[in-house]
Amino acid sequence: MKKLIEGLHRFQAGYFKSHQDLFESLSHGQNPRILFITCSDSRIDPNLITQANVGELFVIRNAGNIIPPFGATNGGEGAAVEYAIAALGIEQVIVCGHSHCGAMKGLLKMSKLAEDMPLVYEWLKQAEATRRLIKENYSHVPEENLLRITVAENVLTQLENLSTYPIIRSRLHQGKLSLHGWVYNIERGEVLTYDPVIHDFVTLEQRNNSPEPEYIYNLYPSCSVSQAEG
Amino acid sequence: MKKLIEGLHRFQAGYFKSHQDLFESLSHGQNPRILFITCSDSRIDPNLITQANVGELFVIRNAGNIIPPFGATNGGEGAAVEYAIAALGIEQVIVCGHSHCGAMKGLLKMSKLAEDMPLVYEWLKQAEATRRLIKENYSHVPEENLLRITVAENVLTQLENLSTYPIIRSRLHQGKLSLHGWVYNIERGEVLTYDPVIHDFVTLEQRNNSPEPEYIYNLYPSCSVSQAEG
Amino acid sequence: MKKLIEGLHRFQAGYFKSHQDLFESLSHGQNPRILFITCSDSRIDPNLITQANVGELFVIRNAGNIIPPFGATNGGEGAAVEYAIAALGIEQVIVCGHSHCGAMKGLLKMSKLAEDMPLVYEWLKQAEATRRLIKENYSHVPEENLLRITVAENVLTQLENLSTYPIIRSRLHQGKLSLHGWVYNIERGEVLTYDPVIHDFVTLEQRNNSPEPEYIYNLYPSCSVSQAEG
Amino acid sequence: MKKLIEGLHRFQAGYFKSHQDLFESLSHGQNPRILFITCSDSRIDPNLITQANVGELFVIRNAGNIIPPFGATNGGEGAAVEYAIAALGIEQVIVCGHSHCGAMKGLLKMSKLAEDMPLVYEWLKQAEATRRLIKENYSHVPEENLLRITVAENVLTQLENLSTYPIIRSRLHQGKLSLHGWVYNIERGEVLTYDPVIHDFVTLEQRNNSPEPEYIYNLYPSCSVSQAEG
Amino acid sequence: MKKLIEGLHRFQAGYFKSHQDLFESLSHGQNPRILFITCSDSRIDPNLITQANVGELFVIRNAGNIIPPFGATNGGEGAAVEYAIAALGIEQVIVCGHSHCGAMKGLLKMSKLAEDMPLVYEWLKQAEATRRLIKENYSHVPEENLLRITVAENVLTQLENLSTYPIIRSRLHQGKLSLHGWVYNIERGEVLTYDPVIHDFVTLEQRNNSPEPEYIYNLYPSCSVSQAEG
Amino acid sequence: MKKLIEGLHRFQAGYFKSHQDLFESLSHGQNPRILFITCSDSRIDPNLITQANVGELFVIRNAGNIIPPFGATNGGEGAAVEYAIAALGIEQVIVCGHSHCGAMKGLLKMSKLAEDMPLVYEWLKQAEATRRLIKENYSHVPEENLLRITVAENVLTQLENLSTYPIIRSRLHQGKLSLHGWVYNIERGEVLTYDPVIHDFVTLEQRNNSPEPEYIYNLYPSCSVSQAEG
Ligand SMILES: [Zn+2]
Ligand SMILES: [Zn+2]
Ligand SMILES: [Zn+2]
Ligand SMILES: [Zn+2]
Ligand SMILES: [Zn+2]
Ligand SMILES: [Zn+2]
Repeated sequence: MKKLIEGLHRFQAGYFKSHQDLFESLSHGQNPRILFITCSDSRIDPNLITQANVGELFVIRNAGNIIPPFGATNGGEGAAVEYAIAALGIEQVIVCGHSHCGAMKGLLKMSKLAEDMPLVYEWLKQAEATRRLIKENYSHVPEENLLRITVAENVLTQLENLSTYPIIRSRLHQGKLSLHGWVYNIERGEVLTYDPVIHDFVTLEQRNNSPEPEYIYNLYPSCSVSQAEG
Repeated sequence: MKKLIEGLHRFQAGYFKSHQDLFESLSHGQNPRILFITCSDSRIDPNLITQANVGELFVIRNAGNIIPPFGATNGGEGAAVEYAIAALGIEQVIVCGHSHCGAMKGLLKMSKLAEDMPLVYEWLKQAEATRRLIKENYSHVPEENLLRITVAENVLTQLENLSTYPIIRSRLHQGKLSLHGWVYNIERGEVLTYDPVIHDFVTLEQRNNSPEPEYIYNLYPSCSVSQAEG
Repeated sequence: MKKLIEGLHRFQAGYFKSHQDLFESLSHGQNPRILFITCSDSRIDPNLITQANVGELFVIRNAGNIIPPFGATNGGEGAAVEYAIAALGIEQVIVCGHSHCGAMKGLLKMSKLAEDMPLVYEWLKQAEATRRLIKENYSHVPEENLLRITVAENVLTQLENLSTYPIIRSRLHQGKLSLHGWVYNIERGEVLTYDPVIHDFVTLEQRNNSPEPEYIYNLYPSCSVSQAEG
Repeated sequence: MKKLIEGLHRFQAGYFKSHQDLFESLSHGQNPRILFITCSDSRIDPNLITQANVGELFVIRNAGNIIPPFGATNGGEGAAVEYAIAALGIEQVIVCGHSHCGAMKGLLKMSKLAEDMPLVYEWLKQAEATRRLIKENYSHVPEENLLRITVAENVLTQLENLSTYPIIRSRLHQGKLSLHGWVYNIERGEVLTYDPVIHDFVTLEQRNNSPEPEYIYNLYPSCSVSQAEG
Repeated sequence: MKKLIEGLHRFQAGYFKSHQDLFESLSHGQNPRILFITCSDSRIDPNLITQANVGELFVIRNAGNIIPPFGATNGGEGAAVEYAIAALGIEQVIVCGHSHCGAMKGLLKMSKLAEDMPLVYEWLKQAEATRRLIKENYSHVPEENLLRITVAENVLTQLENLSTYPIIRSRLHQGKLSLHGWVYNIERGEVLTYDPVIHDFVTLEQRNNSPEPEYIYNLYPSCSVSQAEG
Repeated sequence: MKKLIEGLHRFQAGYFKSHQDLFESLSHGQNPRILFITCSDSRIDPNLITQANVGELFVIRNAGNIIPPFGATNGGEGAAVEYAIAALGIEQVIVCGHSHCGAMKGLLKMSKLAEDMPLVYEWLKQAEATRRLIKENYSHVPEENLLRITVAENVLTQLENLSTYPIIRSRLHQGKLSLHGWVYNIERGEVLTYDPVIHDFVTLEQRNNSPEPEYIYNLYPSCSVSQAEG
């Protein structure tokens, strides 16, 4: 705690003093453009890795960057998603998994958790879609690669889940919302992003060379319902 | 009831007698190829409109052909879906809405239900994604068309919801499962089916002329994770 | 699917064409007289076995024809029951189990389901009253008869559960509602119905000879409360 | 509190001292013969009104002597019921309502509770079956009698609910369990008991004169399943 | 039951007759000063051990005198607590555990309960905070003392839980509410009470000698928020 | 998104390159010393304001930095708390509210949220203890100060809630856990911390001058149970 308190003083004397106008202005309201959903893991610092300023990222963090399907839980995840989009008008949502994720490790050996960490055990059941997919489709994969794939598939599971939320389904329909799937690699300091066209995670370099640099992730089956209307 | 009991006798003396072998054979086990999810509405008879034989359709029926997202309810819907796919190996799932649906009418005027039909009111909250989408995106549509669109959009909502179920997400990944969205029109005796390529509901005739008559509905973002694995 | 689409055409060209007036009339509203609750099993076709017309049966189908007690789940069962009685004014409710029911087989060996079909496992807990009754009272019964008894007792369990629903309790009190317990035998094409007077399931023939052919199942302890009022 | 502490001393010096053997014996285990379910109301003292000794009544008390249907809540009611019957082997269950019950008064004007007592409001929804029955069947009753009837009907609602519990359904089937409905009248010091034969609440005097003084309340439709077994 | 009915007559002819004025007066409303929360155990008679009159104790009884944290269950516990404080204005709350508590015994060997008493098993999970504390902190204690400590710690767990209820948190802030932790010893007829100053359970004698005989249990961190207001 | 991607490159080329050893070392496991619970608000950057390094803070973020009582929700909050303490051995927990919190503003005018943000509305019910306390105890406070007090009281509510979690209750008992309440003031760049001795929030300066610089927040009523053991 001592270190933390010293940090607070360093912050106040340093960064805060030199950005006082920014903070004064922020005290009148936030206007973030990104909803950043990531793991509670201490090795992820969203503002650091994106070099985003204070005020730019609205952040949800829990164990395993899990967003349960609409209605499946009454925790804070859905409320924060709804607030970000309905109240703040955010149009970019990033779900960011990461290498060496303890929650995903837990998911691969659930049964060990039931006794000592019953709440973690229950929570990971919300990622059952990830677990079953891995178990039924990646049995051939050597164990050292399994975690990596689990992390990636779990990000996609959460994108599926997100699209069941009323506010998200409605905004996707309007073409006003983009969902992005990221995997942050701690040891390489690198982010892979899901490319729904080639159905794979690619480096930012690969994405950058594409003609469409700000790709909008869109799995929504929009419905012009001309027939239905007729 | 009298009529029903007479009907049972008529069935036994007629259809049953002439198909006794079929029933004898079915008594050793069912092997349906279709999971048919539709409304409880009395005007829908799944076997009649598809002319399917006894033993061909595994059927889930509730008010509004709603399948809540994975984990959102503890009713029978998820269990029946899981049983159909995991135990019976079904690979074709149809969600079939219908014209003049009372549940969808209720969804458009929810507040009137709270007092007299509290359970219906609570249940329709599971279709909130449909309700919000309609409210925020179809305010310009004349009221007489709104129900039709609601029915169609609701079918798509349920397809989204279905894809959050572990067994479905896993089988979609394997390419072993198809999800179909239907709207049955009572007065025309006709079915419209959702075409994810052109993003609209089309008649079976239109689909028939296409090069790919048994289209597999696929909104799943499959993930080859070559990078993630590397 | 091909077969199904062909069936749709056959339906439209055949049955629909010859009953166009019925369907036109039904498009203005349904008026079913029976709430028919049965299993999702593909071998049951409610309209076929009762020879009921389109528009006569309001149908709820899930795995095991289970209606959890009021408030126990937030699935579609309660809502459909409430809608049938409060909105459609239905006065006859049938719970129809059936021979060779896979859900009831599952109930007799629950533990095997937990891993592979967790949703089915959870759902069958709603039939725990049936399971415990069988376990504690039929230990002497040879295994080949146990399923048959489980199916029958489960129908009675659901009648008990139904009577906890507010709309049902209220209408039973008015004498305006009848609850019927049926077991459909696939290989015999026959229905047994519960007779609350002799406390057993009997064939329709046996019931037919009774002086009261449309027996109203009534387990409701009505309360004239003369003392309470005084 | 002072008064209470003095009471404790009085108890220890008086009743406890003169019954020390009873308490010593009870410290080796309880063996109550009655499960007594009643309201938290301070005006009811189960041991006083039944003159039962310490060790004779296993007691559940909450606002309104409500036992929600099996599975409807995760509060302590179901557990205590199960413990009483499965662990203690109790075979007599009494649900005892009472005149001037504040919870039942609340049930008749629910809407006033939502804001100030949200937990009471939610809890009383568990007695919705009582509320709807009263609203739909006793509109003609003058207000001063309505509470009395509500209390009586609510006792019967709870008997219905009780019969959905697995342990209760199983023991009723064995004929080893009796459910009794009581209404205690505070100002008369009198108990009315439900008589399922004449469908009314009667005084103990009336019951006493009957040939069957310890009537067993039995609404269970037992099933000999001879046909089902055959 | 016979004995009980005789008891009712004895009560009416004896206690009721001699206290008719009290009961008449109570019929106009209750005004209890104590909320007494205790176990369903038949060996506890709250009015007897405190020698309290009819009308003085508002009583909640369940297996293990457990009050789950606010929002954790939808059973009757929270509603009764809220009613006692918000509607009746009660300012003294006692949680009274007891020696030889069967529920607490169950808590120490939970796994044995899952199969035969599933509802008890689920309910005791509400006392998981007690179970974990005992398991992680009292491993050195000989088994014959463990139950006694479990009972005592469980009373404190419930006091913690109580303080999460809105009405309680608000009234504690006003200084208008006292929470008391009691353990009743059946074989000694004695009550130990928790003393938050010395952090231990003490006999009433010890408390009596203190300068503050009606100690108000206060774990609430009140907040004058002078800085926060400034 | 463009800006974000540029930021990622800047991070990789700059901070990551110069701290490659730290990241390499972190890829072998995290060892954070602080569980930092704060709002999703974009104006809070935990690592910035505490100047903590990557790897030092395990972070939970949701709307309003709310941790519902144990068992009240099945969202990610409890799991992350449990993981932080049981798996990572964290011994310092900070709940950090902040000035101008949108969630707390919402709490003060709940009714406006029900229609447009139903999930936020439901989520804020988890802070009902804060809302009721404010409503019943601060009616005299001018509106411009009310938000500030709400934020502060809400931090304390969450500390109360935290102490109902089994792992927390157990570790508090061991004296191995400290709970801290912070309020971060955006426009002053300053943190107030709750001082349980003087029952108020104070600046770090005030705390610094005190003899006990790293105060451990301890509201736990530890129980030496000497009597109980005897
Ligand atoms: Zn992680
Ligand atoms: Zn419909
Ligand atoms: Zn079946
Ligand atoms: Zn009462
Ligand atoms: Zn006990
Ligand atoms: Zn905030």
